[in-house]
Amino acid sequence: MTAAASWPRIEGLAYGGDYNPEQWSRATWDEDVLLMREAGVNLVSVGIFSWALLEPKEGLYDFAWMDELLDLLHANGIAVDLGTPSVSPPAWFFHAYPESRVVTKDGTVMGFGSRGMASHASPEYREAIARMAGELARRYGNHPAVVMWHVHNEYGVPVGEDFSPRAVASWRGWLQRRYSTLEALNSAWGTAFWGQHYDDWEHVVAPAATPTTVNPAMKLDWARFTDDQLRECFVIERDAIREHASQPVTTNFMAHQSWNVDLWKWAQLVDVVSDDHYLWAPDPDAHVLLSLAADLTRSVAGGKPWILMEHSTSAVNWQGHNVAKRAGEMRRNSLTHLARGADAVMFFQWRASRSGAEKFHSAMIPHAGTNSRLWREVVELGGHLKDAAEVRGSVVRADVAVLYDWESLWAQDLEWRPSDDVQFRERMRAYYEGLWRDGVTVDFAHPTHDLSRYKLVVAPASYLLTAEAAANLTAYVAGGGTLLVNFFSGIVDEHDAVHAGGFGAPLKDALGVTVEEFLPMRPGDTAAVRFTDGHAREVPADVWQEDLILAGAEVKAEYVSGPAAGKPAITRHTHGQGVGWYVSTRLDVAGLRSVLEAVYADAGVSPVARPDTLEVVTRHGAHHDFVVAINHGDDAARYPVAGLDLLTGDETNGELEVQGGGVAVVRTARDTGGDGG
Amino acid sequence: MTAAASWPRIEGLAYGGDYNPEQWSRATWDEDVLLMREAGVNLVSVGIFSWALLEPKEGLYDFAWMDELLDLLHANGIAVDLGTPSVSPPAWFFHAYPESRVVTKDGTVMGFGSRGMASHASPEYREAIARMAGELARRYGNHPAVVMWHVHNEYGVPVGEDFSPRAVASWRGWLQRRYSTLEALNSAWGTAFWGQHYDDWEHVVAPAATPTTVNPAMKLDWARFTDDQLRECFVIERDAIREHASQPVTTNFMAHQSWNVDLWKWAQLVDVVSDDHYLWAPDPDAHVLLSLAADLTRSVAGGKPWILMEHSTSAVNWQGHNVAKRAGEMRRNSLTHLARGADAVMFFQWRASRSGAEKFHSAMIPHAGTNSRLWREVVELGGHLKDAAEVRGSVVRADVAVLYDWESLWAQDLEWRPSDDVQFRERMRAYYEGLWRDGVTVDFAHPTHDLSRYKLVVAPASYLLTAEAAANLTAYVAGGGTLLVNFFSGIVDEHDAVHAGGFGAPLKDALGVTVEEFLPMRPGDTAAVRFTDGHAREVPADVWQEDLILAGAEVKAEYVSGPAAGKPAITRHTHGQGVGWYVSTRLDVAGLRSVLEAVYADAGVSPVARPDTLEVVTRHGAHHDFVVAINHGDDAARYPVAGLDLLTGDETNGELEVQGGGVAVVRTARDTGGDGG
Amino acid sequence: MTAAASWPRIEGLAYGGDYNPEQWSRATWDEDVLLMREAGVNLVSVGIFSWALLEPKEGLYDFAWMDELLDLLHANGIAVDLGTPSVSPPAWFFHAYPESRVVTKDGTVMGFGSRGMASHASPEYREAIARMAGELARRYGNHPAVVMWHVHNEYGVPVGEDFSPRAVASWRGWLQRRYSTLEALNSAWGTAFWGQHYDDWEHVVAPAATPTTVNPAMKLDWARFTDDQLRECFVIERDAIREHASQPVTTNFMAHQSWNVDLWKWAQLVDVVSDDHYLWAPDPDAHVLLSLAADLTRSVAGGKPWILMEHSTSAVNWQGHNVAKRAGEMRRNSLTHLARGADAVMFFQWRASRSGAEKFHSAMIPHAGTNSRLWREVVELGGHLKDAAEVRGSVVRADVAVLYDWESLWAQDLEWRPSDDVQFRERMRAYYEGLWRDGVTVDFAHPTHDLSRYKLVVAPASYLLTAEAAANLTAYVAGGGTLLVNFFSGIVDEHDAVHAGGFGAPLKDALGVTVEEFLPMRPGDTAAVRFTDGHAREVPADVWQEDLILAGAEVKAEYVSGPAAGKPAITRHTHGQGVGWYVSTRLDVAGLRSVLEAVYADAGVSPVARPDTLEVVTRHGAHHDFVVAINHGDDAARYPVAGLDLLTGDETNGELEVQGGGVAVVRTARDTGGDGG
Repeated sequence: MTAAASWPRIEGLAYGGDYNPEQWSRATWDEDVLLMREAGVNLVSVGIFSWALLEPKEGLYDFAWMDELLDLLHANGIAVDLGTPSVSPPAWFFHAYPESRVVTKDGTVMGFGSRGMASHASPEYREAIARMAGELARRYGNHPAVVMWHVHNEYGVPVGEDFSPRAVASWRGWLQRRYSTLEALNSAWGTAFWGQHYDDWEHVVAPAATPTTVNPAMKLDWARFTDDQLRECFVIERDAIREHASQPVTTNFMAHQSWNVDLWKWAQLVDVVSDDHYLWAPDPDAHVLLSLAADLTRSVAGGKPWILMEHSTSAVNWQGHNVAKRAGEMRRNSLTHLARGADAVMFFQWRASRSGAEKFHSAMIPHAGTNSRLWREVVELGGHLKDAAEVRGSVVRADVAVLYDWESLWAQDLEWRPSDDVQFRERMRAYYEGLWRDGVTVDFAHPTHDLSRYKLVVAPASYLLTAEAAANLTAYVAGGGTLLVNFFSGIVDEHDAVHAGGFGAPLKDALGVTVEEFLPMRPGDTAAVRFTDGHAREVPADVWQEDLILAGAEVKAEYVSGPAAGKPAITRHTHGQGVGWYVSTRLDVAGLRSVLEAVYADAGVSPVARPDTLEVVTRHGAHHDFVVAINHGDDAARYPVAGLDLLTGDETNGELEVQGGGVAVVRTARDTGGDGG
Repeated sequence: MTAAASWPRIEGLAYGGDYNPEQWSRATWDEDVLLMREAGVNLVSVGIFSWALLEPKEGLYDFAWMDELLDLLHANGIAVDLGTPSVSPPAWFFHAYPESRVVTKDGTVMGFGSRGMASHASPEYREAIARMAGELARRYGNHPAVVMWHVHNEYGVPVGEDFSPRAVASWRGWLQRRYSTLEALNSAWGTAFWGQHYDDWEHVVAPAATPTTVNPAMKLDWARFTDDQLRECFVIERDAIREHASQPVTTNFMAHQSWNVDLWKWAQLVDVVSDDHYLWAPDPDAHVLLSLAADLTRSVAGGKPWILMEHSTSAVNWQGHNVAKRAGEMRRNSLTHLARGADAVMFFQWRASRSGAEKFHSAMIPHAGTNSRLWREVVELGGHLKDAAEVRGSVVRADVAVLYDWESLWAQDLEWRPSDDVQFRERMRAYYEGLWRDGVTVDFAHPTHDLSRYKLVVAPASYLLTAEAAANLTAYVAGGGTLLVNFFSGIVDEHDAVHAGGFGAPLKDALGVTVEEFLPMRPGDTAAVRFTDGHAREVPADVWQEDLILAGAEVKAEYVSGPAAGKPAITRHTHGQGVGWYVSTRLDVAGLRSVLEAVYADAGVSPVARPDTLEVVTRHGAHHDFVVAINHGDDAARYPVAGLDLLTGDETNGELEVQGGGVAVVRTARDTGGDGG
Repeated sequence: MTAAASWPRIEGLAYGGDYNPEQWSRATWDEDVLLMREAGVNLVSVGIFSWALLEPKEGLYDFAWMDELLDLLHANGIAVDLGTPSVSPPAWFFHAYPESRVVTKDGTVMGFGSRGMASHASPEYREAIARMAGELARRYGNHPAVVMWHVHNEYGVPVGEDFSPRAVASWRGWLQRRYSTLEALNSAWGTAFWGQHYDDWEHVVAPAATPTTVNPAMKLDWARFTDDQLRECFVIERDAIREHASQPVTTNFMAHQSWNVDLWKWAQLVDVVSDDHYLWAPDPDAHVLLSLAADLTRSVAGGKPWILMEHSTSAVNWQGHNVAKRAGEMRRNSLTHLARGADAVMFFQWRASRSGAEKFHSAMIPHAGTNSRLWREVVELGGHLKDAAEVRGSVVRADVAVLYDWESLWAQDLEWRPSDDVQFRERMRAYYEGLWRDGVTVDFAHPTHDLSRYKLVVAPASYLLTAEAAANLTAYVAGGGTLLVNFFSGIVDEHDAVHAGGFGAPLKDALGVTVEEFLPMRPGDTAAVRFTDGHAREVPADVWQEDLILAGAEVKAEYVSGPAAGKPAITRHTHGQGVGWYVSTRLDVAGLRSVLEAVYADAGVSPVARPDTLEVVTRHGAHHDFVVAINHGDDAARYPVAGLDLLTGDETNGELEVQGGGVAVVRTARDTGGDGG
């Protein structure tokens, strides 16, 4: 096995997209490479869905067309990110191994005909993907075009869970390895409740269809199991490739857009982190979630540069209302990814498909062809990336961390919670947006990480918090950190069991408060909190209130109305050298920013003033900093930075002006351009 | 077999809850009994979900822990309501007898992992529950702690229907016993429609998945069959217990909260009636439905005192927004149950679970522990029940009956009715609330009951009304009674066949009106009716109008607008010595109270004036009456009654003042405190 | 085999309904025929659901009751439309051939107990229906009462698709016949996308449950296959009948109310076209859709008179809110059908059923009996039809055609389209309503039809448009026609593949425009367009905008707001002798009428002025024209026509006045009464 590189062998920033030439004639291939060169494309992903063409019958391979394709690309100076086609086994596979089909919770068997997703627990599937990955690596491990391996595609979507008999058998083995004894499993799952005690490993079931709510600890383990199964499949392919090839191996994540995979764990397994991102059209400020996804991707990558493997030039096709991007929007989106650590900007896909499920998905070459706004913007963006090539390898630094834990998300998403309106994703976005609008660049972190380098740590949704993690947070505060915790945090342990001592008990020392009782509100009911400082302003608050038990904390806001009227709503507590803040109700973004303003003061965070639609992030390089500015507003906006705008070639004279909808990448002296944090 | 007692051997009013110590350490048991004594708990239900611990392998019993538990409780003066664990068979049962699993209408097999509900038609299940109940009764039939048997749990939820092959086979046998001949079945089901004629018993299907709407008479029989299956299982356990034990046997109903069981029939089978009740959080006046459930429970119990087996100290966990009870609300809820005939007040559950599906359900000891508002209110309530002990055994009397028939509910819930907006439960609540706000205490009655002792009978939703029942109502009116009938009543017979003679024909004599055509309104459309008496006031009316055919009735209100504009809306008819009223449209509660005011005058019902948020019900004892008052409003309210408030020890001086949110139980002279009816 | 007649042997206009006497006693039959004579009924449909009674055991027939029934009807002068009962096989059939049951996409097996729909691919089913149809034809082919054969009932509802193993096997055969080679299939379906390439016919699946969106070209073929299967079953029965009988054979369509059958193809197979129509109650102007359905029925019938086989006297029973028809509404509905080509007016059903799924469906004899408004209106309508008997055989002529293509509907209904708000049916209704309110009578046409006789052709929803069809439309314009095309037309070919050249490329010559990019709007967003003629008025526009590429067209309106603000919205192009209009956004009916006004001018269409609630259509006879007027408004309305109102016997004196809610049928000179077109 060969040691892998940590970045694809390619000059400057990478630019390109998924390339699926099997849908087109050979003549189109020639046109494609000419246009790629026109656009500055230097990297394309190929072969992701090509299993049926590479292995038309079981064990019979046809690599001729791929040979020709790679040679053509290489001859034109275009590097290749070579896919393994495991995401979509061919029709013959499902016909030969029908028991490898995924089964839903209700027992429905998922057939062929869309993306041919197979059961990840299937031994036949695992054998087939190892063989295919090995054959590809043997043949192309030394091909000069191939600079990276792209295993599978978006693990966990469109299906993650599998209730096939083989998956259930794997599940029992997984549980035996996890718990060793049935006593441990019974204890972890609390099977004494509702008479669910197990006396034999063979009696253990999967959380399929049942008369009512399934044991929540079992479901949480099921989510871990599912994620583990997917990771096992990735490792099988990665290792098969490494037998023959030394290029870095990646797979494309969907940070904050798919939910079955724990990216903290996945990022340990890849050589380079890649991410796909698509705007959510109903959200008029979808670019805020884009920033969140980019920051999360960089964070799981340990702060290292990463690859934006897919985004779209304009509309997608799978939402209810596939809003097209308007002039300049693709450039802004791309620059935000760059600003937040991406050293590659790639699209799905190169040329819009005429057939199939995604023919209405935008592409670098739209159905309208190259005489189109989209194509002109694609060419322009290629130029920008060339101009900004020196940004490559620079890093983002943040003083603030936001806690993000997929296990907590899985646990909070289980059934029968106090209120349907309390959602991990909703609060994550609200707190993130507050910080984003304040111009504060953040990292994401796991609650067990070393947080000491951060001035401020924010926990928008830490429902599941192990005792170990709570101790870590408490030590962080004791050591001088500032911690801001949202309600419904610190409630359960790793088995979804309520912590002894009452709700929030594990954070009692850090926050100086615990919760006597949750007070969910009826749908549509609203209330308000009043800050108890000099200004006494009121802000709206809905969904949730609490009966708090003060254990040393001071009250910073109290409920004006609602079930806890007159009682504490927001508290602040000094613990050791640091401070713990607690927000016990749902505030909107404006309300959160009111709280954050005071929290920043405790933490020593000083955002730079600018319009809250001007996104500014600094990448720090070996010799220079690069201030990337994206103006999401209609009006020109200014930001204090001295240096050269790499895109225009203009010097800023100390203040950058970015036109409405425009972007800039300013090379400046090291550590003088602020990043708002 | 031993004759059973009709009330558990216990002093005064019973107080306690479900106790599930198998979830806790032995040390916690000792703490529990001390706290139970502090709170005045004298009865706990145990073992309801303990099958897997009592019989860890098939045929292998472990009673040691139960022995120890019962001895501990007895030593501390706490009586036991001993559960049979048939609601939740162990994992080994489903592994050994997979064909005993419930199957849904669509063919999905309901597995283990939540509440392990089994097919009630399964011979293996029936044998297993008989054996377990027998073993428990043999061992604990003479245990001094055990004062009652609690068979199963909430029959009919979370699943009632079962389409497993064994259930379908049982169904055919049930039909053969019911109809004897296929000719009778074909006639009853109207199989001539849509070509559904059966020529062989083996061809008869269950109403599982079909291309479109299933034969409604078949579905109605299926509901009866399902209910019968559940009752058969209860009787199997009851009789197994009676082989060895003489304590009364009960099972916990969910009156007006679950819908698969006909409580008129079930109440005949138990020694004492028990009920579970949970507030429906979206309803800001959920206490009105609580009163309804309590009155319904008392009514199926034949007016005798009953056991409130479960309610909650605060929030539940299985609704979308689990609103917590505020200070005093648990007390008000408990006193309403007492007022309406409960001689026991019990909760689910004693101590909040740390694990499992219901860990966010409130309990007598919350997660916050005993230093909490909830615990203090639990202790206070225990004191109240001790102070009011003499209420035990007294009864409620009502002059008004509301007709309630589960078969009519089942029939009205079938598919393809004239309007989705016409709902049994909606109208039941509206009429009940009108009477409740008028301070009129009601019984519920089946339409075939002897109604002669009531001044007024109200039929909010008697869609299915047999010829026999219609004759009973007609005779009631002829004999001097007052009958108030809502639209969509008297439509079909016991086979869901439209009565000959047109809609409402069976009540034509009593009401002096039939219906030429239903006139459902479009969603959101509103209209009004105008009363034709001197006042000529208009009230809103929506959802439904009718073309009425007057057959002797006088018009009391007519339609101002809508499809029947200008035509009769509300009628009054003299028949024999009595009067029949008919309301042909949907009125809101205020509109119904306008009608009721006139109806009371006919019936000789005279409610006592008080704020309509002051709930007052009288229990009549052997020597005294007890006026129970619950103030659901924020302001103090007065009610004319002379006597001693058992909770405060204060004499009322002829007028009781109840603080906002407060309660009172006034011992007064017999039959002088009015009950508003 | 005997040649079939093209119209049932019956005098004048036919009047009657479905007659299901098997639900009633023999005494009721006698009453029925007397009442039929009173109402003027001369045709009834019998036996549609009688399989279980005609063949109570497999191979054992009982025709005695049918003999008696037909003789009774014949003796009373009532002709019979004799049903074949294939829509509802008996219980014994499903018991004997369980593999003939329909299976849903998710694998649920559809059982007996509602309408017993069988798999149309089942050989046993096909054999059984051929045998039954043959037996009926042998016995009744010469019965004097029988004037028509009514095969099956409403093909395609309640289920069309079938995923049973036998259906999947038939599907593979169908595909082999369609494509001959797998290469052709792979190309047509674009299986290169998502790796769906097939290498063996046995590997081809049906579009059942899959992890995500199924190949759209496969789904489109599946819709064609399903339709073909149904047609094959019809032909089997039709041909079995023709072995023995010469009466015309029909089956009842549900034009624009069921969606699985391509009526252009079906109408070729029947001797006479029949249609069922039911008002959609939530639509306050449901009579507009009624007109659309009637015009569509006439159009598929090639302009020949047709049979309204079912409609309702008042409410149906299967909608959420089954609104009853008010006085006069049944007459108006019936006359609209007559006006648009129906020479028979029939109802479901004669007498309201007391039992079964449809007992709340209105009938000619309602539950209230004959002393009812409904019955009186039934008798009145019978008189009208007798008075208007001479209308029979006359035809409707139109100058305007609306394109309607079931294949395009199927394709547009597939998943993952640009906007959920763009719907075939919604736009079809909007354009039709604009024309209807303008008083313009239209035909429907397939885009490949010869359109040269129309002044104007409107394409509200031609998403799928083959190159051949586009050439046809282009030639139509070139030859002098006026074409009005709505957005999202001309997008894909017969395989749901995007046409080369960009969206709308096939119509580029005709319209002078193509589409660079779709710009769907977010839900609820609104915008406006401004006409660029002298008036410069603005009209609202929502759901959709486009970036248009002008290729010769002139701009008639531009976007005031929205994603395409300032750009062209509506265009007009001269091509050859004709004109092509294009509307690139969603206008409401008023907005469309603004466009139509200008389009009419190009086309030479001159609607007659009248209130837009007065529906007027002319039928052209051999000797006279008949102007049928239906007033949907409350006020009297006038229309210029000279002649005799056949219903009243009054002469019009040059101007007809129709009372609010009233109707008229005026015999006038040939071709002098205008039809608004």
